[in-house]
Amino acid sequence: MARFEADLPPMTTSIGHSTADDIWVQGYNLADELMGEVDFGSTFFLLVTGRLPTRGEARLFNAVLVALADHGLTPTALAARLTYTGAPDAIQGAVAAGVLGAGSVFLGVFEGAGRVLRAAAPDAEASSDEELDRLAAGIVEDHRRRGSRIPGLGHPFHKNGDPRTARLLALAREHDLLGPHTRLMLRVQALATSPSGKALPLNAGGACGALLCDLGIETEVLRGVAVVSRAAGVVGHLAEEARAPMGTTLWRLAEREASYEPRR
Amino acid sequence: MARFEADLPPMTTSIGHSTADDIWVQGYNLADELMGEVDFGSTFFLLVTGRLPTRGEARLFNAVLVALADHGLTPTALAARLTYTGAPDAIQGAVAAGVLGAGSVFLGVFEGAGRVLRAAAPDAEASSDEELDRLAAGIVEDHRRRGSRIPGLGHPFHKNGDPRTARLLALAREHDLLGPHTRLMLRVQALATSPSGKALPLNAGGACGALLCDLGIETEVLRGVAVVSRAAGVVGHLAEEARAPMGTTLWRLAEREASYEPRR
Amino acid sequence: MARFEADLPPMTTSIGHSTADDIWVQGYNLADELMGEVDFGSTFFLLVTGRLPTRGEARLFNAVLVALADHGLTPTALAARLTYTGAPDAIQGAVAAGVLGAGSVFLGVFEGAGRVLRAAAPDAEASSDEELDRLAAGIVEDHRRRGSRIPGLGHPFHKNGDPRTARLLALAREHDLLGPHTRLMLRVQALATSPSGKALPLNAGGACGALLCDLGIETEVLRGVAVVSRAAGVVGHLAEEARAPMGTTLWRLAEREASYEPRR
Amino acid sequence: MARFEADLPPMTTSIGHSTADDIWVQGYNLADELMGEVDFGSTFFLLVTGRLPTRGEARLFNAVLVALADHGLTPTALAARLTYTGAPDAIQGAVAAGVLGAGSVFLGVFEGAGRVLRAAAPDAEASSDEELDRLAAGIVEDHRRRGSRIPGLGHPFHKNGDPRTARLLALAREHDLLGPHTRLMLRVQALATSPSGKALPLNAGGACGALLCDLGIETEVLRGVAVVSRAAGVVGHLAEEARAPMGTTLWRLAEREASYEPRR
Repeated sequence: MARFEADLPPMTTSIGHSTADDIWVQGYNLADELMGEVDFGSTFFLLVTGRLPTRGEARLFNAVLVALADHGLTPTALAARLTYTGAPDAIQGAVAAGVLGAGSVFLGVFEGAGRVLRAAAPDAEASSDEELDRLAAGIVEDHRRRGSRIPGLGHPFHKNGDPRTARLLALAREHDLLGPHTRLMLRVQALATSPSGKALPLNAGGACGALLCDLGIETEVLRGVAVVSRAAGVVGHLAEEARAPMGTTLWRLAEREASYEPRR
Repeated sequence: MARFEADLPPMTTSIGHSTADDIWVQGYNLADELMGEVDFGSTFFLLVTGRLPTRGEARLFNAVLVALADHGLTPTALAARLTYTGAPDAIQGAVAAGVLGAGSVFLGVFEGAGRVLRAAAPDAEASSDEELDRLAAGIVEDHRRRGSRIPGLGHPFHKNGDPRTARLLALAREHDLLGPHTRLMLRVQALATSPSGKALPLNAGGACGALLCDLGIETEVLRGVAVVSRAAGVVGHLAEEARAPMGTTLWRLAEREASYEPRR
Repeated sequence: MARFEADLPPMTTSIGHSTADDIWVQGYNLADELMGEVDFGSTFFLLVTGRLPTRGEARLFNAVLVALADHGLTPTALAARLTYTGAPDAIQGAVAAGVLGAGSVFLGVFEGAGRVLRAAAPDAEASSDEELDRLAAGIVEDHRRRGSRIPGLGHPFHKNGDPRTARLLALAREHDLLGPHTRLMLRVQALATSPSGKALPLNAGGACGALLCDLGIETEVLRGVAVVSRAAGVVGHLAEEARAPMGTTLWRLAEREASYEPRR
Repeated sequence: MARFEADLPPMTTSIGHSTADDIWVQGYNLADELMGEVDFGSTFFLLVTGRLPTRGEARLFNAVLVALADHGLTPTALAARLTYTGAPDAIQGAVAAGVLGAGSVFLGVFEGAGRVLRAAAPDAEASSDEELDRLAAGIVEDHRRRGSRIPGLGHPFHKNGDPRTARLLALAREHDLLGPHTRLMLRVQALATSPSGKALPLNAGGACGALLCDLGIETEVLRGVAVVSRAAGVVGHLAEEARAPMGTTLWRLAEREASYEPRR
């Protein structure tokens, strides 16, 4: 068809490869070196970053995945359940539907926090307290001037602080993984206030975003990490939906509660 | 709108719930009892089954998730990468696209093995060797008569046996988790042959399906477990695609290799 | 990577092709022969079948697409709206979520009717009334013996007959497009009764399935035709959701109505 | 569960509603007033805008849908085909995968053009030529200063002008539908040049975006219109894939052409 020229850039991958006798993942022998040796969360870390996590990194990365897996009957879980109602024979479609709601509103905070921190570019080696103070003041001032909220601060339900945040920070401290992005995020939190002057707690999205930056997860993939976590929660909901369905009740509820007002 | 009657069946969920101060997952306090205490794979097990796995179950379930996470540049991974090419701003869509190819062809074996075994309904308590032999002979005979392949046996590449199968069985034996479904599957494998009379190895899909049945995963959700595993592999591919894209090259390759033959 | 042998089967496509000056679709010049000349429904027919419909076929095919486009606040529409709530920046994801619920439960009837009719293989040229009577009796008897419902008959709401069915049949008759599949379906309907002995009306899914078979749509693609139709309805719902959102209300409704009963 | 307060905002819809005897869409009786009377493209217009198009609007809107339906073996079509390879039993998933690649890269131009034009807010009634000249100069100057490309201008293949653009503009003129957004877009095109000083043709995305704005499609839904159009093209590709598959060849091609370079 020749719409494109003949010379194509080379394609290379470092992820997976198999021969008749062996399967390799990021250079590790899957059956011998990973299965039974490395937990799923750490294998996910390997797939994304190209290296196995240390013991502390594995514990923290797993804790982030656990923290984001479920939030009850969220729009995400409801969309998955309603999709399963119509297509129970294709559960992959219901998982996909659940995952597709993990967009700017729900994961915007998460990714947004990462973007703000990465843009400030704190240096792992050289970030003195003074330097981080300066960067934090810049971030707060910049958002104040533009009248925009700093992603990762405040929470609609957990007014006294998100219980996951304290736990994540404690784990990071325990394993000496409180890196420059999280240290910067904490300084931003300490400086920032709501328009009415109240302190804003660091929410789990902000904490996870900062910690994943410190763990070396690329900004483009931050949302992808949360999506895998959320997929696990969605499959939990679908397992329950298969046993004790609520999809049809939700449908009836919507039909009952909504009024029809044609515009014609 | 009142198309449905007024009385609706009650909706209940056991998965997630939150108050101002706490978040609960299957009755566990998320921040205190799960994060940092339980790995992500085990939390996924909890979400799906409603209980935490034992140490051995956790190791085996994690190994299953690790085994299925990636298979290199499969149609699944390619679909995700090509979707990312068009919509890099919505990585959740690329993950969804990758997950949607996890259907009857790729995961049919997996789910199919589970269905065959569950239909035979081996009893965990009372399944004597003789009983399992009898059930296995029935399954093999039934498929022979209908001329259909037994799901979980044979592999297009790993002719000498799928390296993941041996590892999974060893792990199950080590933790005394070789339950009646897997014992039945092994008997089926020992009896079955290809149409040309050759022995057929137990592939990873068949082994995973049988082991997950023994772990108590419902048949309807088997494919969902594989989908979460595969989502992790897909995000690995997307992380690589963001760094070293091959989507446009695949596009050009297809345009170059395909010929246009209008039917008009 | 060389996991596969070197010789690959050729790839050919008849659908689309473009040069610097022209774009071709199924051998037609897109700008000169299709845009402004052929409506979207007919272009869809061309894309799927490789030929343009006659005037009558175009009217009937468009009527089928119109018939299936919307059914109010169905699980499909709700899943799309809830996905939009979380990811308004990626409307393609919300459309995809809406489409993913178009599975076995909602479109099973549609595709199932087509499969039953295609399996009976009525011959367009030679199907005498006697031959069709014989095939219809066989279908009804076969389902009675297996205790299974005949797809396309009966409707939960439209007890007196689906209003779309009469309209579709009238259009088909008007254009002399009541082919052997639909004639067979009508005979099946006349013979079949519910378990309690009542007559069962031909529903819109059954009528559309039969008529699309007569129009030459392949069985594998029947569901795909309905999916495009439903996508239009879903975008209608999303346009409304953007103006007058109900996603958050649905979420609150679910949280309010559901009770939390941990299994622990 | 009571996480939210009890009082919920009301939910209303104007789209679809059904009673035992009738089905209504935007206040029209589906069977009597739409099926057989109104083509699918016009019904889609009704679903999105709440009103039926005039004869000229229907022709133009259909032409836009036809223009965007297919572009050959694009990443979008390839992703759908590869998904079908793995899950042929759930064609809705393959359509969804095809639709999910309709994101910022491929439809960014389309939506971006609409956003730029809507932000300039030309007034349908009062937009004099002078006023539009002033707005166009502002848009060009603004993009030049920020060093960003104006969405809708230039095309990688159709260097001499996109053949669809001329056709769309001719249709709009014929029906007196060249409204203020399109007139503004044309002025922007006349003023803008590439960084090297060359004129940039108005591409089909830019023309469609402007014309849909003039037709009253909301900015948030522009991409959704293109997604339905593309879904039709995707189903065309899947119909071909079911007859003459290329998915496995694409897989083999990728495996053959890509080199494996583990990072370990």
